Amino acid sequence: MSYEIKTGKEQAAPILWTGDFYNEGTGSGDIFDTLKEECGVFGVFGHPEAASMSYYGLHALQHRGEESAGICVANGRDFNYHRGMGLVKEVFDKDKIASLVGDMSIGHVRYSTSGDSRLTNAQPLVFKYRDGDLAIATNGNIVNEPLIRKQLEQGGSIFQTTSDTEVLAHLIARSQKDFVEATKDALQQLVGGFAFLLMTNDKLIVASDPHGLRPLVMGQLGEAYVFASESCALEVIGAKLVRDIEPGELLVLDKDGLREDRFAEPKRKALCAMEYIYFARPDSDLNGSNLHSARKRMGSRMALEAFVDADIVTGVPDSSISAAIGFAEQTGIPYELGLIKNKYTGRTFIQPSQELREQGVKMKLSAVRRVVEGQRVVMIDDSIVRGTTSRRIVNLLREAGALEVHVRITSPPFKNPCFYGIDTPDRRELIASYKSIQEMCEEINADSLAFLSPEGLIQSIGGYNSDDYKGGLCLSCFDNDYPTQVDFGGEEKDGCSC
Amino acid sequence: MSYEIKTGKEQAAPILWTGDFYNEGTGSGDIFDTLKEECGVFGVFGHPEAASMSYYGLHALQHRGEESAGICVANGRDFNYHRGMGLVKEVFDKDKIASLVGDMSIGHVRYSTSGDSRLTNAQPLVFKYRDGDLAIATNGNIVNEPLIRKQLEQGGSIFQTTSDTEVLAHLIARSQKDFVEATKDALQQLVGGFAFLLMTNDKLIVASDPHGLRPLVMGQLGEAYVFASESCALEVIGAKLVRDIEPGELLVLDKDGLREDRFAEPKRKALCAMEYIYFARPDSDLNGSNLHSARKRMGSRMALEAFVDADIVTGVPDSSISAAIGFAEQTGIPYELGLIKNKYTGRTFIQPSQELREQGVKMKLSAVRRVVEGQRVVMIDDSIVRGTTSRRIVNLLREAGALEVHVRITSPPFKNPCFYGIDTPDRRELIASYKSIQEMCEEINADSLAFLSPEGLIQSIGGYNSDDYKGGLCLSCFDNDYPTQVDFGGEEKDGCSC
Amino acid sequence: MSYEIKTGKEQAAPILWTGDFYNEGTGSGDIFDTLKEECGVFGVFGHPEAASMSYYGLHALQHRGEESAGICVANGRDFNYHRGMGLVKEVFDKDKIASLVGDMSIGHVRYSTSGDSRLTNAQPLVFKYRDGDLAIATNGNIVNEPLIRKQLEQGGSIFQTTSDTEVLAHLIARSQKDFVEATKDALQQLVGGFAFLLMTNDKLIVASDPHGLRPLVMGQLGEAYVFASESCALEVIGAKLVRDIEPGELLVLDKDGLREDRFAEPKRKALCAMEYIYFARPDSDLNGSNLHSARKRMGSRMALEAFVDADIVTGVPDSSISAAIGFAEQTGIPYELGLIKNKYTGRTFIQPSQELREQGVKMKLSAVRRVVEGQRVVMIDDSIVRGTTSRRIVNLLREAGALEVHVRITSPPFKNPCFYGIDTPDRRELIASYKSIQEMCEEINADSLAFLSPEGLIQSIGGYNSDDYKGGLCLSCFDNDYPTQVDFGGEEKDGCSC
Amino acid sequence: MSYEIKTGKEQAAPILWTGDFYNEGTGSGDIFDTLKEECGVFGVFGHPEAASMSYYGLHALQHRGEESAGICVANGRDFNYHRGMGLVKEVFDKDKIASLVGDMSIGHVRYSTSGDSRLTNAQPLVFKYRDGDLAIATNGNIVNEPLIRKQLEQGGSIFQTTSDTEVLAHLIARSQKDFVEATKDALQQLVGGFAFLLMTNDKLIVASDPHGLRPLVMGQLGEAYVFASESCALEVIGAKLVRDIEPGELLVLDKDGLREDRFAEPKRKALCAMEYIYFARPDSDLNGSNLHSARKRMGSRMALEAFVDADIVTGVPDSSISAAIGFAEQTGIPYELGLIKNKYTGRTFIQPSQELREQGVKMKLSAVRRVVEGQRVVMIDDSIVRGTTSRRIVNLLREAGALEVHVRITSPPFKNPCFYGIDTPDRRELIASYKSIQEMCEEINADSLAFLSPEGLIQSIGGYNSDDYKGGLCLSCFDNDYPTQVDFGGEEKDGCSC
Repeated sequence: MSYEIKTGKEQAAPILWTGDFYNEGTGSGDIFDTLKEECGVFGVFGHPEAASMSYYGLHALQHRGEESAGICVANGRDFNYHRGMGLVKEVFDKDKIASLVGDMSIGHVRYSTSGDSRLTNAQPLVFKYRDGDLAIATNGNIVNEPLIRKQLEQGGSIFQTTSDTEVLAHLIARSQKDFVEATKDALQQLVGGFAFLLMTNDKLIVASDPHGLRPLVMGQLGEAYVFASESCALEVIGAKLVRDIEPGELLVLDKDGLREDRFAEPKRKALCAMEYIYFARPDSDLNGSNLHSARKRMGSRMALEAFVDADIVTGVPDSSISAAIGFAEQTGIPYELGLIKNKYTGRTFIQPSQELREQGVKMKLSAVRRVVEGQRVVMIDDSIVRGTTSRRIVNLLREAGALEVHVRITSPPFKNPCFYGIDTPDRRELIASYKSIQEMCEEINADSLAFLSPEGLIQSIGGYNSDDYKGGLCLSCFDNDYPTQVDFGGEEKDGCSC
Repeated sequence: MSYEIKTGKEQAAPILWTGDFYNEGTGSGDIFDTLKEECGVFGVFGHPEAASMSYYGLHALQHRGEESAGICVANGRDFNYHRGMGLVKEVFDKDKIASLVGDMSIGHVRYSTSGDSRLTNAQPLVFKYRDGDLAIATNGNIVNEPLIRKQLEQGGSIFQTTSDTEVLAHLIARSQKDFVEATKDALQQLVGGFAFLLMTNDKLIVASDPHGLRPLVMGQLGEAYVFASESCALEVIGAKLVRDIEPGELLVLDKDGLREDRFAEPKRKALCAMEYIYFARPDSDLNGSNLHSARKRMGSRMALEAFVDADIVTGVPDSSISAAIGFAEQTGIPYELGLIKNKYTGRTFIQPSQELREQGVKMKLSAVRRVVEGQRVVMIDDSIVRGTTSRRIVNLLREAGALEVHVRITSPPFKNPCFYGIDTPDRRELIASYKSIQEMCEEINADSLAFLSPEGLIQSIGGYNSDDYKGGLCLSCFDNDYPTQVDFGGEEKDGCSC
Repeated sequence: MSYEIKTGKEQAAPILWTGDFYNEGTGSGDIFDTLKEECGVFGVFGHPEAASMSYYGLHALQHRGEESAGICVANGRDFNYHRGMGLVKEVFDKDKIASLVGDMSIGHVRYSTSGDSRLTNAQPLVFKYRDGDLAIATNGNIVNEPLIRKQLEQGGSIFQTTSDTEVLAHLIARSQKDFVEATKDALQQLVGGFAFLLMTNDKLIVASDPHGLRPLVMGQLGEAYVFASESCALEVIGAKLVRDIEPGELLVLDKDGLREDRFAEPKRKALCAMEYIYFARPDSDLNGSNLHSARKRMGSRMALEAFVDADIVTGVPDSSISAAIGFAEQTGIPYELGLIKNKYTGRTFIQPSQELREQGVKMKLSAVRRVVEGQRVVMIDDSIVRGTTSRRIVNLLREAGALEVHVRITSPPFKNPCFYGIDTPDRRELIASYKSIQEMCEEINADSLAFLSPEGLIQSIGGYNSDDYKGGLCLSCFDNDYPTQVDFGGEEKDGCSC
Repeated sequence: MSYEIKTGKEQAAPILWTGDFYNEGTGSGDIFDTLKEECGVFGVFGHPEAASMSYYGLHALQHRGEESAGICVANGRDFNYHRGMGLVKEVFDKDKIASLVGDMSIGHVRYSTSGDSRLTNAQPLVFKYRDGDLAIATNGNIVNEPLIRKQLEQGGSIFQTTSDTEVLAHLIARSQKDFVEATKDALQQLVGGFAFLLMTNDKLIVASDPHGLRPLVMGQLGEAYVFASESCALEVIGAKLVRDIEPGELLVLDKDGLREDRFAEPKRKALCAMEYIYFARPDSDLNGSNLHSARKRMGSRMALEAFVDADIVTGVPDSSISAAIGFAEQTGIPYELGLIKNKYTGRTFIQPSQELREQGVKMKLSAVRRVVEGQRVVMIDDSIVRGTTSRRIVNLLREAGALEVHVRITSPPFKNPCFYGIDTPDRRELIASYKSIQEMCEEINADSLAFLSPEGLIQSIGGYNSDDYKGGLCLSCFDNDYPTQVDFGGEEKDGCSC
């Protein structure tokens, strides 16, 4: 049986291979860094301690980017900002936060890639232009950025970063209109998935792409407005979640308060499904769904679509714990701690050499021998990217004495690159794009492998009007149905360049 | 109904108040640092990469002490060692590990207290004495250390640290016997709970107090022997768990291999129950019980002893997640992520000011509004120390909209200080020592409060021959029944001074 | 007698007040940071270890800027660069230097100001533009930069730094010509004093303003060419000094070797006299004069112009030691170590509070009591800026027991701001601009004060054809005779913004 | 002519070879680290800001030890102390100094050796013993320390450091007498050269060995007493130099004020001559002589003993600048800056590889080509240790074009190891111990070489009653006449182990 993704209103067919050598595996981005986080933004309007609020807010968004952090505050006269490489708590100390005086601010945490982790790319980017100071923080990716950049260069523009944000600044600066109109014009030229925070000395602008591909929420804290990539960052400062920013929406906050506007008509709502599956924090709500609960439902649904009899259920930490508990609740198979992640690893940790790994030295993840020994194990994971990581985890379980390892992935097979802010490998490296489920199952050394169906995923996430096309989600990495144009004659860009 | 701890073979009476205003709360050591970790030790004999093995082993024991770390290696001629303040990954880098050449080593991680966190106290302590080099690493506390120290000072000894370890070194150095006999003599003078690793240029000695109060396990890695406070440190380097060190046992490892000896007759086995309840890592095994599984059983048992109808069960992370899952499995009430801990906090994190906290800025822990709002919540925690932390967590849940908060503590009321290595507040600060369960319930603002009975605890832990007195556990912090003499006329010491 | 600066071919009149209460004082830039260093540049073409050479070269130029350092290397395909805050040795380590592979490079050290010491201003600045990569390092100041910047902003340009360098990049990018011609066009629009190094993937351009205001020398190291702000940076890597770059000259280095060109006709040669007086290292040669020797001659000349009988001569370290030795040689009064500077101070040094200073705690500079006690002291210094520092030093000598303190300044009174790269205070703060020499003498509490005459300065520096107007020097800070237009209708800028 | 050191009252014979190929070379400790600094101590009694005073005082003594620094303060109840690796300004920050509250303190800076630069050796060492707290800071070396240490170990003592200080603490602790008497007893057992500061909660003890081998001065700052290795540390905090501590003297400071006592009869006064020649700061006074002035006299005397006609005189920085100026004043040959030291080098500086050095990359020291080219140069240095450094410096001058290089060393040939606190190489590595002056001259590639005679040295230093044997100096490194017993049957120790 060859695998085929069913979408739309058709009946869900569990993506399951039950032949000789069963089925599928997992990526576990947070363990082996296969999928990269894609930045977080945080904005404050009208709070006297905007920098402190940003510090705690960005800290709550830290999982979205561990490479660099920055905060820029405005006080009506000028900007003060600080950016640095590292975690929020490493980049800022009390003195630095105290020096950032102002009641309006935008902040950013940035993910890490090997090639381009320069401080110059740390956001918010800050510019001087005709009308004064301008700061921008972004999450997402502009697909046609290379084309626009080329045009700007032809027109004599210079670039100091590789960030999409700089392109936006150029477009605004070159417009002859006022700041708000110039920003609208500029945004209309962009194709992609993005959430932008822009700040001048007296205005804060908040915008989301016409498909709402990247998450962005608004909260209130007393009289102040707060904006964040995820609601967990509101909760941590005691702010109340008001609503999600709409596709194509553009909010302007200034001395006249909040003005709701838009730079584009909303198109098909298509929030990134991977936010639900893997990226967002379990205590965040997106479009009315709590993430932990949604993941539990994915696990439950998985149990219905591809039940397997076993002794214990375990999840690959941290992202698949919720789903594993859901699978256990649905099946009655006890949830156990079969895998454990060492929470103390990080940049400065000495990774074991290949030789030591072969001698048995574990990396960030260990199997718990007494729990899995002699057991038939259901291992829940969120995705399989290249397959190598899944194979390693399955083998960890086997070496710890698991009799059987049944892998259940709470998403459909990952076959297509993301153009909207997630840093994915080349399509040729995506195992699901060139192997059948059976082949993948063999490759990762599992006893069986199954993926959640797209329908299962959509229904688990819920929170959307069921009339929305594909539940209001972008499933392009699974089904190749991109909400925007993604081919610009070779001048397009995938991944993330915020 | 006044609370009364039942022990021995009597029938378990659930420690539950169900009056008007119900019952009890929790300490959550890992969240608010009320109970301090108490050091971890790691030893290697006969492995050419002893320092690397120690690095990974100590890293797995990091939860037992985040303040300082150290490794001393021997190569038959001299010692090389390095100690520093901070996490294992901060204290050591590749060059430092590479410089520690030798096939025998002892290492240590130390917990943090405010008063005495000096580098001079970082272990292993290294001494020169008549017979050459001596290094010692300890976990535990010697109750009569002040008395011995005073005697040594009267005899002209000087002390450079406040560590028990230095006392042991003096006793050994002052003996006229050979190293092994001198060590036995010295250990016999000590009263308390301790696990010691001692190393000379050609010998490694491993010893546990006569009650086996502190955990200490032996593993094998090929021809090499490995010793650790917890089995998780064996697993991470691929070593096989052989057995727990026995009460009063003393192992000698040298060119003649491993010799099993003892310095004292074993007394009542009394392994620290708090290791099961809170300290040890869930993937460790102690005396044949996996910690995660034991905690799940505590949660299950709790459900039987003090069931309460509710909509969701949540655990205070990280230590009470396992128990909460057990409670949920037993009751069918779904386990949900009602509380979440921010994994990025740490030394350099700027703690919110009291003023900011009052404005709603959360610390390390947040309640997940969408999960708890409008729900009746069972909150599982491991212990209540002063009660202030429990009150804060209950209030977090209420502020997030919980209708009811029923607190279930997976241990009996904590009423007595520890003399064997856990840094507890003064008895007068232990809320259970001066308040009834009803009063505590009110104090922490819960709808009901219950504690696990001692019998429930003992049976949940299991792993011991049921004939062992109190299941082979030390329950003195609950029942005031200390396995050793603890009163030395004012010259005794509680807490931890490794 | 009122003070009057004599210039040109007139007879030198020593600038000396010998009334009741004598005369003048000093600034001592290196001690109390009144005058700021003004950046150093270093370039390499055709050396396989360009980054290493740059490291040592920039290190030799460290006195020109302690705030930030950076190196960008080219290898024919792309750029690799690293910049950071701090000293060269702090910004770079072995790994970083090793990662900068290429045979062409430009580097920079930047001085420190309080207001704008951001990493974003650290050079070399690196840009992408139509034709590829572009890196620029600058020393100096463009007087009409604000005007050009304004025009560029009107044309839609954005700026990320406050550096002049960014303006140059914009001008080049907006030109339709090829790189070399575009650079020439751009440079022609600039008014000021500057030394520029520009690098693309295949070309290095070296340029000096039409007056040659800032120093820039060329050296050879085997087949490689090396460029530096001062010759000491050539010496340290074993390169041979070839010559100084000429006013208006533009050198192009590429696969065809070195091509000598110019972007402007040379105008009146006007090398900054303060380089000789204070900034440049004593072991550097500028225009054929060794700096130490020139300073000795200034001291000698000073002795002739304003002799005073005394017991000892001392110099304010480090910059005035050479002059003090010259004064001593000329007069026979012994040179003694009356003042000493603590070489270990630096950024992290805790400056004594005002209260401690009043209690006698010395800063970086101390008087040596046994040397000065009971002595009549000639104190040689290079300049007086605000007068406060001179007063402090004179008082240090008096407190140490000096009977008399005669201050001799080896430059004319400093009366006018610099527009060409030296960060001077506002004219109103320059004590010489509003006080007579007699008043200054009183203000700094000296027994007598004299300044070197402009003629004396010119003749001491020597090294120029005597036919050159004002010895080929810019003396504008003394005589208000600026070589370029400095008034652009309020859109001009003084100081330094490299 | 074979070289022979003349001592005592005999007529000075200049140590000069003037044969065909002349003579001798130099050590230049501060440039190439051949001779090691030997620690500095600083004590305060009765000042409310004892820690701040110590910070500035130790900073002024930084040249005596760059490896580690520490301060311990007493406040009548307990000690507070902080020690760390690095410079004073690196080890301490404002918060640390502010936390060291007390009006009595002792501090220490420690020199750097490769082998044993452990933090555990950082001073002050702090002990607990029978009578309470004890802190000790030392400069010097105890020759019979190994013997005492062995006896103590036989008696059951343990040692945690390799410092002499720990031996002293043991001896005091083992005495049955009160603290002051116990200290006296202990000091009487020590043979060597040492300056000790000891502190309890209510007493400060200051002591110097019976020959006064190491410098130690007393000052007053208002009502407070201050003690330091050199007077420059008094000057910097505004304290007045009172006097040098006498040989065998022991001062006790407590609530009854200052009591002058002694633990031993004074023996032949023998202050280390190398302090005058090289170690001490030029602005310090020792025994009434200012160091800069003494060094100038050495240069003058050298000119008389071994004049050579030349064009310029230059000194090896920093230690020989003063002597070079003296030589120039005496001879009329101008002093020029022929050699320059880069002040920015330090621990983190990347030393050029051998290959780069051969290509001409200079280390810390450069010759100034324009100054020395075509000149006959007199190069003044303080000592020759192995000869390799002298050869390098001579060659630097030759490569820069010097026609002749005449080396003049302002001390006699260095032939014998130091037992009193200076870290010297093995005797077999001391070039003067196995080569004639002619051979040394050839070895270092000089045109002529001369050493200052012992008489010349003694008379230059002056400041002592001429009746004192050898001018009250220890010249043992030159003449093998050690003031104390230095042979303890193989149980002695040379160098420095403070």
